Amino acid sequence: MPRTATAPNPLVVNISARHCHLTPEAVEALFGKGHQLTVHKWLYQEGQFAAKETITLIGPRSRVISNLRILGPCRNLNQIELAYTDSIALGFDIPLRASGDIKGTPGCMIMGPAGFFEMKDGVIRALRHVHMHPTDADFYGMKHGDNMKLKIGGDCGIILDKMLCRVDKSVKLEVHIDTDEGNACNLQPDTSVELTK
Amino acid sequence: MPRTATAPNPLVVNISARHCHLTPEAVEALFGKGHQLTVHKWLYQEGQFAAKETITLIGPRSRVISNLRILGPCRNLNQIELAYTDSIALGFDIPLRASGDIKGTPGCMIMGPAGFFEMKDGVIRALRHVHMHPTDADFYGMKHGDNMKLKIGGDCGIILDKMLCRVDKSVKLEVHIDTDEGNACNLQPDTSVELTK
Repeated sequence: MPRTATAPNPLVVNISARHCHLTPEAVEALFGKGHQLTVHKWLYQEGQFAAKETITLIGPRSRVISNLRILGPCRNLNQIELAYTDSIALGFDIPLRASGDIKGTPGCMIMGPAGFFEMKDGVIRALRHVHMHPTDADFYGMKHGDNMKLKIGGDCGIILDKMLCRVDKSVKLEVHIDTDEGNACNLQPDTSVELTK
Repeated sequence: MPRTATAPNPLVVNISARHCHLTPEAVEALFGKGHQLTVHKWLYQEGQFAAKETITLIGPRSRVISNLRILGPCRNLNQIELAYTDSIALGFDIPLRASGDIKGTPGCMIMGPAGFFEMKDGVIRALRHVHMHPTDADFYGMKHGDNMKLKIGGDCGIILDKMLCRVDKSVKLEVHIDTDEGNACNLQPDTSVELTK
């Protein structure tokens, strides 16, 4: 008899447009004392949201990106995630890093309605990654820190190599790619996607 | 004895930033009667050049792209090639097409120092493609219109699927990808590249 294997959870691939994560201190500097982020849209991962608040990023050549979305809730570090297309437009030379690994990365000035805030570091292109519950990691035979491939179909399909597995009990199976990756393959809601070793 | 096979020609992969091809009539409308394109930089293919002249593209929501480079020499059709990141920024919904296949595609207004020109159609995302001399096509076992894959290495490597082979006696082996594809994999001069079936 042919055998079948069924993944325990559906594979969701989402494109992360450029965005930032901020500390409570940065939010206060930008939006005023005691300010709390407000929910614009809930994201796929429990408790994560796109905030109504946006900021202006001022790059090294005084070029700006306006309406840069803040993702909530606040974190214990300030980090801006851009696609290379964004960073080239700004004149930034930014490194490819796993989210949170910002030591030695470039910083920038950011601006909100209540003031400026200087980030000493934290501007990166985020390494493509897949959030996995331990159940998913077991199914795919992966452990935290391993790399997988993501095969994306369609008329301009691509295979993304070296996609970092981030395994955590608190998450649902979800791939995050950036707008360069999503636009390279024209990812749409009905595009076929497959995780492979 | 182990056997070796050596490709007849080096593989060159170039990123095409957004650009346009124009007819002599369009160049005259935009730059004045009798105007000839001038060479800014010679390209890899014999006789092809980036012109000093640039135009302004006016999109469907009156958003613009300034300094859109013209590639010369003139052709017998007007065509603008954008990355999806560009088209999303402009508010265009553009199709993926092989260069030259512009029937039914959206048009736009373009502007130069001497006037406007209306393109009825011709705004596309160009299908990723590889220009091949028949010698290269023979080596890779391909014919005009076939598809290949391009494997690009590095920390954020990708494999580009469905890359169109364009075989012609007048060309040198060269892959053209757009800025979304090039930025998705951070293509650099020392990045490894490999054509495969």
